[in-house]
Amino acid sequence: MILEKISLIDKYSKFSKHWSPRIIAEMNDYQFKIAKIQGEFIWHDHKDTDETFIVIEGEMNMHFRKKNIKLSMGEMIVVPRGVEHKPSAEKECKILVIEPRGVINTGDKKNKLTIDKEMWV
Amino acid sequence: MILEKISLIDKYSKFSKHWSPRIIAEMNDYQFKIAKIQGEFIWHDHKDTDETFIVIEGEMNMHFRKKNIKLSMGEMIVVPRGVEHKPSAEKECKILVIEPRGVINTGDKKNKLTIDKEMWV
Repeated sequence: MILEKISLIDKYSKFSKHWSPRIIAEMNDYQFKIAKIQGEFIWHDHKDTDETFIVIEGEMNMHFRKKNIKLSMGEMIVVPRGVEHKPSAEKECKILVIEPRGVINTGDKKNKLTIDKEMWV
Repeated sequence: MILEKISLIDKYSKFSKHWSPRIIAEMNDYQFKIAKIQGEFIWHDHKDTDETFIVIEGEMNMHFRKKNIKLSMGEMIVVPRGVEHKPSAEKECKILVIEPRGVINTGDKKNKLTIDKEMWV
């Protein structure tokens, strides 16, 4: 059993690739993933689960089909299951994503941004 | 369906009571709760679930029976199910707790700190 704290700053310092979520912790069957994002992601949804985004540093947009929500440091959003969304960020933004183990970042849309293996950092 | 962001700063501004977690969001059957803590909590565990603490502002200690872990802003810890722990903070500390819906803050130890009703903020 590991009883250790996790430093987000330390973890972010260990990779630089955009749109490449890294797992930093697990809680029951959920995972905490950090990512650095910049530019546009793709439209996708997750049929079976909600997905939570927390902005740790910078600013991002969460685009929905009918609205756009701008998120800054210290703001979060829960994207409900089945709702199409597209994250974007003009400048690099650091986010924390919380979702069940096994969720694929691009949902059922497979493309070059798809990360279908687990990467810990 | 609500597609709105949640500002942690705004939510923290709406209450001042210590050791009184407030729900700010739900993701599937999990809840995000914020709390302001100061002083000592009680020893307790949660038999059926892990529990995640993220420090949003300030510093706290997570005491375990065999070690003490000091957590600062931007640091987090997942307390495994069944592991006794006792949070404390010398000065007021703002935390974000993530755990399944229905978890009681004091586990199976009922006392004056027990919050057994859901309070949203």
